[in-house]
Amino acid sequence: MDRFIRSCFANPSSNRCYKRRMEQLAIKLLGFAAAACTTLAYAPQFVKVWKTRSTEDISLGMFLVMVFGILLWLLYGLLSGDAPLIVANAITIVLAGGILWMKLKYG
Amino acid sequence: MDRFIRSCFANPSSNRCYKRRMEQLAIKLLGFAAAACTTLAYAPQFVKVWKTRSTEDISLGMFLVMVFGILLWLLYGLLSGDAPLIVANAITIVLAGGILWMKLKYG
Repeated sequence: MDRFIRSCFANPSSNRCYKRRMEQLAIKLLGFAAAACTTLAYAPQFVKVWKTRSTEDISLGMFLVMVFGILLWLLYGLLSGDAPLIVANAITIVLAGGILWMKLKYG
Repeated sequence: MDRFIRSCFANPSSNRCYKRRMEQLAIKLLGFAAAACTTLAYAPQFVKVWKTRSTEDISLGMFLVMVFGILLWLLYGLLSGDAPLIVANAITIVLAGGILWMKLKYG
């Protein structure tokens, strides 16, 4: 593996290196699509609670632990300098935090 | 930075290298705590819906997009060989998938 990386530095335009780069790009795009989904998923729940003001079936425990966990992810992203992690969790904390706030307000 | 890593390979027991390794360990532990929270957060919601059979306030859109996103994360973890990502998302998909299933069943 290490030898393969070194050979790609020596000859980056080889066919094998190109294929490998394309594979890694596809995996990265898959990661971005995954992050977009698990971030934006909170939006319809936020809108629903905003409109109905009804939160009885929503678990307080879920959103307390979730918002705390997202805060830890944000801190982890900041400390390891991971931009996608920071952006995704900054958006998620607003949406999930908003749902938690409405749960506490409407019960 | 690169030069720093090389100097740590040459003299791994130096004080600076030890501090750096401890920092990286702390950041890794923070990441595990974050993953544990955002994974286990679904458990109280799962239990609540299981007991009450009431899912009116839960957004179908949220859990559809969320379960799809978790599937993509799982695929991403498998393709990039990231064990913590695989474990966390395998647990989450059971819990979030169960909530989605009950939402579809009880409406």
